[in-house]
Amino acid sequence: MDLRALISVSDKSGVVEFAKKLSKLGVEIISTGGTYNLLKESGIDVLKVSNVTEHPEILGGRVKTLHPKVHGGILAKRTQEHLSELNEHNITPIDLVVVNLYPFKETILRTDDLDEAIENIDIGGPTMIRAAAKNFKDVMIVCDPSDYTKVIETLENEEANMDFRYDLALKAFSHTANYDALISEYLRKRANKGLGDTYTKTFEKVDELRYGENPHQRAFVYKSVLDENTSILKGEQLHGKQLSYNNINDANGAIELMCEFSEPTAVNVKHANPCGVATASNVKEAYLKAYEADPVSVFGGIVCLNRTVESDLAKELNKIFIEIVIAPDYTDEALEILKSKKNIRIIKMEIKERSKTWTTKNISGGILVQDSNEELWNKDTLKVVTEKQPNDSEMEDMEFALKVVKHITSNGIVVVKNKQTIGIGNGQVSRIWAMENALSRSNVDLKGSVIASDAFFPFDDCVQMAGEKGICAVVQPGGSMRDEDSVKMADKYGMSMVLTGIRHFKH
Amino acid sequence: MDLRALISVSDKSGVVEFAKKLSKLGVEIISTGGTYNLLKESGIDVLKVSNVTEHPEILGGRVKTLHPKVHGGILAKRTQEHLSELNEHNITPIDLVVVNLYPFKETILRTDDLDEAIENIDIGGPTMIRAAAKNFKDVMIVCDPSDYTKVIETLENEEANMDFRYDLALKAFSHTANYDALISEYLRKRANKGLGDTYTKTFEKVDELRYGENPHQRAFVYKSVLDENTSILKGEQLHGKQLSYNNINDANGAIELMCEFSEPTAVNVKHANPCGVATASNVKEAYLKAYEADPVSVFGGIVCLNRTVESDLAKELNKIFIEIVIAPDYTDEALEILKSKKNIRIIKMEIKERSKTWTTKNISGGILVQDSNEELWNKDTLKVVTEKQPNDSEMEDMEFALKVVKHITSNGIVVVKNKQTIGIGNGQVSRIWAMENALSRSNVDLKGSVIASDAFFPFDDCVQMAGEKGICAVVQPGGSMRDEDSVKMADKYGMSMVLTGIRHFKH
Repeated sequence: MDLRALISVSDKSGVVEFAKKLSKLGVEIISTGGTYNLLKESGIDVLKVSNVTEHPEILGGRVKTLHPKVHGGILAKRTQEHLSELNEHNITPIDLVVVNLYPFKETILRTDDLDEAIENIDIGGPTMIRAAAKNFKDVMIVCDPSDYTKVIETLENEEANMDFRYDLALKAFSHTANYDALISEYLRKRANKGLGDTYTKTFEKVDELRYGENPHQRAFVYKSVLDENTSILKGEQLHGKQLSYNNINDANGAIELMCEFSEPTAVNVKHANPCGVATASNVKEAYLKAYEADPVSVFGGIVCLNRTVESDLAKELNKIFIEIVIAPDYTDEALEILKSKKNIRIIKMEIKERSKTWTTKNISGGILVQDSNEELWNKDTLKVVTEKQPNDSEMEDMEFALKVVKHITSNGIVVVKNKQTIGIGNGQVSRIWAMENALSRSNVDLKGSVIASDAFFPFDDCVQMAGEKGICAVVQPGGSMRDEDSVKMADKYGMSMVLTGIRHFKH
Repeated sequence: MDLRALISVSDKSGVVEFAKKLSKLGVEIISTGGTYNLLKESGIDVLKVSNVTEHPEILGGRVKTLHPKVHGGILAKRTQEHLSELNEHNITPIDLVVVNLYPFKETILRTDDLDEAIENIDIGGPTMIRAAAKNFKDVMIVCDPSDYTKVIETLENEEANMDFRYDLALKAFSHTANYDALISEYLRKRANKGLGDTYTKTFEKVDELRYGENPHQRAFVYKSVLDENTSILKGEQLHGKQLSYNNINDANGAIELMCEFSEPTAVNVKHANPCGVATASNVKEAYLKAYEADPVSVFGGIVCLNRTVESDLAKELNKIFIEIVIAPDYTDEALEILKSKKNIRIIKMEIKERSKTWTTKNISGGILVQDSNEELWNKDTLKVVTEKQPNDSEMEDMEFALKVVKHITSNGIVVVKNKQTIGIGNGQVSRIWAMENALSRSNVDLKGSVIASDAFFPFDDCVQMAGEKGICAVVQPGGSMRDEDSVKMADKYGMSMVLTGIRHFKH
């Protein structure tokens, strides 16, 4: 077989076997640096690229293959015109380019050293990959060792197999895109630079999922490399079936909400919305309070906890059907109890504070990018606008309610008593309906409970409804033209009202 | 100034002026092809790269700069070791690389020809950009003409200015990431290939927004290049302030829902959820019906229409405060009427059928990717499971209700009568609450209306509630272990029930 292959790989897995097979097929092999040495030592007949270029490797290997003898060989179309030009300049065509890149990702995950990261930005490699991929009709570009077998098969069958060549080119450009996206993301993040005129974000496949939001939708989950946030994708699954698309999305919602809390807390979630949230002196009590908040909706939902699960809590969890339980750890006994149910998915993960980051939302034909919402309220600038001042316990409940309302869809109202949600009204097109839902779904007496609203009250009707039910304090951003009406209404019912100035819409 | 610049640009705007200033500062300029000719004709002293490399441009310009004389000059660190190596090989350092790339994007937007697209994949350009960016501590990489002024200023002041150099390098890698992401996206889309091990998506900045979902969040909007979908970002704004983050997100929801309809239809949206949807024989009637469905929530919302707005409709729209109106066109008279309100945003755009695509949802630390939900129901496989068969008008209303329920957050129930939503229950953690909300928010008699549910009924209680209110038909996917109970309940109330087998969760 009168072909020439250029092999220059950073990841050397499988390359010796591959090169041997190429040799056996009569393919001439040229190579550089470490790859050359490895192939030579393995008894493979291999030619140094510097013999092809008649130019030494210089600058500690920074320049090895950036030469017309290499790139003319890769980029020439197999037309009479191009081939005679190669001939004229004594350049041999290269038919197969086997290249993978300096481990930039592995480097930045290992060290904070900028110089070392930069040294691991490959220049020659991407150039060969891109050149070969551009010329895929005449050159095969192999940047993934898992393709070696298929390449050998293709060569053995001597099929043109344009579809395979196209796939290889697509993979090549996906690889260089991923490589440079990661470099730019790293440089941006490292120096805390703002966003640019283009926004390119890259992810690595974690899994194909059984299906998407619905069974007729295919789906995949990918993870980002540089994100330091607490993420469901970093959790360790100890038991149960693969997480589904909706599991991952809903668990993400539970975790983002849980990040607000440091005391022992339970967050129950259904359809990406919390149905019960509670804090207590221990996590079992917290779960029992969260369960009590809405013992119906949690069925088939997610329970997220921020302390180790012990056996007494595991027994409580086992009393109902829960799809997923998430906690930083489980005692052996607790784990055994939970595992007695086949269908529960058990996830072990630390839920730490979130790192401030950009969050994105996809829309048809584009993307919205914004700061993550890291505010809650500023205790120094709160304004109590009513005659009545809230007491400490009411303030604590208002803070708790705000944490929850921040994570439910707008319009949102949350009723809280003793750090337990007792009514959640979310996702309503009208604020009064959100209030109605929040007030009407309680199992317990509302007297003495507090309310948080994600945005201001346009009229005094919401406050009136709350007052009639015995709500004692309200926290809201304020900012309506009719704030004064709501304040008057609060005074009428002897409620306290706190304005935060900070809105928490979530759409 | 003893510096050397390599200039090779596809976008030649400002380059002559820039090169003149460099020349004046004593910077030696080397160049290729068209850029060389332009600079030469403009009277600038410029050296051909082929004189530097002592190698001609070959293969129709495919290989010009891929040479150690160029890349040694770019990649050498300014250390004694590297410089003496350059000296030994008679290579002059290059201090400034001014390169932008073959117009791949413009080519694929202009033509469907694969060969032409491939010819416009730049190989030499990205290599120079990446090499210079890697060596940013010693080399300035300028790939954006808007940086020319600042580069001259920097050179004039002879500041080291490492921060600026870093910014240039970041911009360079962002540029090559964007370039290759677009190539891979194009190749994938063109051949309808599945997703790979990495997922890299790139966007172009449209605007910085005043703020994000909330005033304390910074935000930007970016558009994708290849997406053929109907998108709010393709709309033409005829009047009003810049769209806000929530405007764009909510409008996107309105448009995605509108894509389900071809007859004259109005979609009213508040907080990304529909509050009134109606179809009629003309768009004014459709709007009046949608308004009537919920005349309160639409205040401050979005009205999306799929026919030209004429003056009589404009007058109706002007009766309330609407944030955004979206329609394919407006008569001059209608536009004048609408423009009399300062705060309305008027968008002109065609709302065509959506193209099947991948949709993504961001989670902390990753991304979920799935097929867009392009199903509604399959009329050939529907099962009527009740004694009563639905009539044609009920079937039409069920189809209408399904179209709406598909676009509201889960759990979702929609009540429809004569192609008008008369109750929408969305985003509930329990199905019975969704049903309660949908049934209780109607302004009109529910008798004779139909109901769509996004997922199955776990118990017969929802159907019972509907039956008690006089609902005559129910459409739902089915699939509960207790489907039979719901069917019996429907029979008891003389309702018809249709099972589609297709779930429409949306989280």
